[in-house]
Amino acid sequence: MTTRAECVARDVADPLAGLREQFELPADLIYLDGNSLGALPRAVAVRMQAAVQQEWGQGLIRSWNDAGWIDAPRRVGNLIAPLIGAGIDEVVAADSTSVNLYKVLSAALAIQRAQSPARRVILTERSNFPTDLYIAQSLARQFECELRAVTADRLIESLDARAAVLLLTQVNYRSGALHDMVSLTAAAHQAGAMAIWDLAHSAGAVPVDLNGADADFAIGCGYKYLNGGPGAPAFVWVHRRHVDLFEQPLSGWLGHAAPFAFAEIYRAAPGIARYLCGTPSILSLAALEEGVRTVRAAEAHGGMPALRRKSMALSTLFIELVAERCANLGLTLCSPREAERRGSQVSFAHAGNGCAVMQALIARGVIGDFRAGLTGAQDDPDTRDLLRFGFTPLYTRFVDVWDAVEVLRDVLESGQWREPRFAQRAVVT
Amino acid sequence: MTTRAECVARDVADPLAGLREQFELPADLIYLDGNSLGALPRAVAVRMQAAVQQEWGQGLIRSWNDAGWIDAPRRVGNLIAPLIGAGIDEVVAADSTSVNLYKVLSAALAIQRAQSPARRVILTERSNFPTDLYIAQSLARQFECELRAVTADRLIESLDARAAVLLLTQVNYRSGALHDMVSLTAAAHQAGAMAIWDLAHSAGAVPVDLNGADADFAIGCGYKYLNGGPGAPAFVWVHRRHVDLFEQPLSGWLGHAAPFAFAEIYRAAPGIARYLCGTPSILSLAALEEGVRTVRAAEAHGGMPALRRKSMALSTLFIELVAERCANLGLTLCSPREAERRGSQVSFAHAGNGCAVMQALIARGVIGDFRAGLTGAQDDPDTRDLLRFGFTPLYTRFVDVWDAVEVLRDVLESGQWREPRFAQRAVVT
Repeated sequence: MTTRAECVARDVADPLAGLREQFELPADLIYLDGNSLGALPRAVAVRMQAAVQQEWGQGLIRSWNDAGWIDAPRRVGNLIAPLIGAGIDEVVAADSTSVNLYKVLSAALAIQRAQSPARRVILTERSNFPTDLYIAQSLARQFECELRAVTADRLIESLDARAAVLLLTQVNYRSGALHDMVSLTAAAHQAGAMAIWDLAHSAGAVPVDLNGADADFAIGCGYKYLNGGPGAPAFVWVHRRHVDLFEQPLSGWLGHAAPFAFAEIYRAAPGIARYLCGTPSILSLAALEEGVRTVRAAEAHGGMPALRRKSMALSTLFIELVAERCANLGLTLCSPREAERRGSQVSFAHAGNGCAVMQALIARGVIGDFRAGLTGAQDDPDTRDLLRFGFTPLYTRFVDVWDAVEVLRDVLESGQWREPRFAQRAVVT
Repeated sequence: MTTRAECVARDVADPLAGLREQFELPADLIYLDGNSLGALPRAVAVRMQAAVQQEWGQGLIRSWNDAGWIDAPRRVGNLIAPLIGAGIDEVVAADSTSVNLYKVLSAALAIQRAQSPARRVILTERSNFPTDLYIAQSLARQFECELRAVTADRLIESLDARAAVLLLTQVNYRSGALHDMVSLTAAAHQAGAMAIWDLAHSAGAVPVDLNGADADFAIGCGYKYLNGGPGAPAFVWVHRRHVDLFEQPLSGWLGHAAPFAFAEIYRAAPGIARYLCGTPSILSLAALEEGVRTVRAAEAHGGMPALRRKSMALSTLFIELVAERCANLGLTLCSPREAERRGSQVSFAHAGNGCAVMQALIARGVIGDFRAGLTGAQDDPDTRDLLRFGFTPLYTRFVDVWDAVEVLRDVLESGQWREPRFAQRAVVT
């Protein structure tokens, strides 16, 4: 049996342990929801004060030049690029994940319509994050395509001669299952389809190599493992072979080749800048820039591979401790057992009671989240209500895993979750 | 002749003078560019610290509920609503002006295509702000429509049987000319077209009554007269008669009728919430909320009508003082002479030298901006390079107008603008 002392010893030996000092974390909390909202980097408060008081307050309009505001989407994009295997000037930070998906899926469908008009299917995973499904539904109508949403095991066989785009989130938001970007992208290309990857739950959590995988388009989220703050700007990447082929439809002035010429006719900027739209949110980009730096700080200690190793060790420890200490307490593992097939999160079901159990955990200072199941047949794993726990390797300690499992055990053994105050449903994102 | 002492006396007598105390303004600057980026409200620094340290840092994911994050787009929208003649729950703050224009212009064109398929023209003003033209160009292609861009005097006669949408910015970004929303909306309706109003340079600067004018759609900017900070979220309004008719194409999860049900199929929320898309930028919305409050604070002193009276008095004084003190120095007024036909800004041309003159003014602490002319025939007023001066009534003093004109006179009389250091072109937004 594992002991708490062993967990403490693992933290002492952890070469990444010092990275936790980058964050403000409430002392009385075990935060296992960095997959939903990353913790606050200490540098953000300082940076935000400078952005507000100096750049905005004193610099005013001059800061578009003098403080580098105009360059912020490209600068933050370049800071993200090495984390996702993108080249320099291939990424911009802008808008939301949903808006960026609209841009790239429009581009992919337009390119396919021009080159292979018979391809009329957007293939995706049924339990893809809802906003991806919703944007795909909208564009399926606009492009007179079919959105085909299947379970993960049926993706490859569904890549047929009608497939235009394979749209996947690399790490499933429910189960934490990690798709193999290389083989799925290759399968899509072999079938004549393009691959769009949503990196919402992978950027900053697992090593990603977009160019290495020869992916076509990617988008991702700034407020999860990139620690950019609530509703932080998202990012967008387009492979060099496509980037100048198509003018994405959200042709706002910042995507113009010469935005300050105030020309009457839109002329798309060369490269990824054409995926910008309106005036960028400078305060949010400043926070995101500091957030991305907390991940890049790991480079002095082994970088993404080291973060990935620690993330797998944390989530494996969690699964092992739950098996050891919460046996026969009604929990069912709903994430892949093999660490290599998981992202940085682990989900358990607790038949019918997941929401109340999570409320009780939160009341006890262990913050995970709850995800209701999809509607469907009873034996369908997508219908399970899930307790979801994220293990951000930048700031989660091995002892946190131990302590969280102890609280989980106590909540279940004591039946505390049955208290009426935990019956309400949480709002979570 | 007006004297500086008279200007000081007007400030002393100004019932709105105290509103300036809401802002951090550099002591050595006369800021006449609030039409491009509003000044920093003092409350923003405090609010931002609370949003960062308490809500994000301590509350973490719980703040979506506990700190009201999830309600921020609607809450800020309701704070804006009275400034633009919108009802409660008719406005949301979200995304950028460009993205919001894409939503409402898509909606207008889709509704017209269903009801009046022969209407295939988007009518706009040639010198509309470029991003509006660019988004309209994109949607004109998508909907197989024509974008007809004419000078302001030809708008009414161009509203023919093919007109689907009249798309106008209420205050022209170049000349400051103010369109009559009531008569132009009525003319559009009479011709069978819908009216979309961009309130970028009017919300918070001139009284707007969208419901009173029976407008169809409106969008606007958070970082000009609403003082929300660089790249602040924009806002969107849709008339009740249209709002549930169409699902706008940027169907992100926040626009879903039940976003936290994580359903597989998009079902648009009833009302204006369906014009939301992705996760809202909470830090930017917090700044915008404080910014809007600086305008609402005028309600204790006469509200928008009082702000409008002061704005007209300030810009009229500027025009008069330039006529008195800068006669024969090469300036040509490029804004309407009648205050009622202007927004809160005034433009002058200085043949060929506008950019250098503005650089010299900025170096002397008078911040306006420069707008290059459009390409076209030499006698076309849209081709003029403009010196642009904004007079935000919340924080501009009559004595500031006097002092700014004195600097302008000196820069022109002395020929200081001819110094080589002023030859470069400014980046401005």
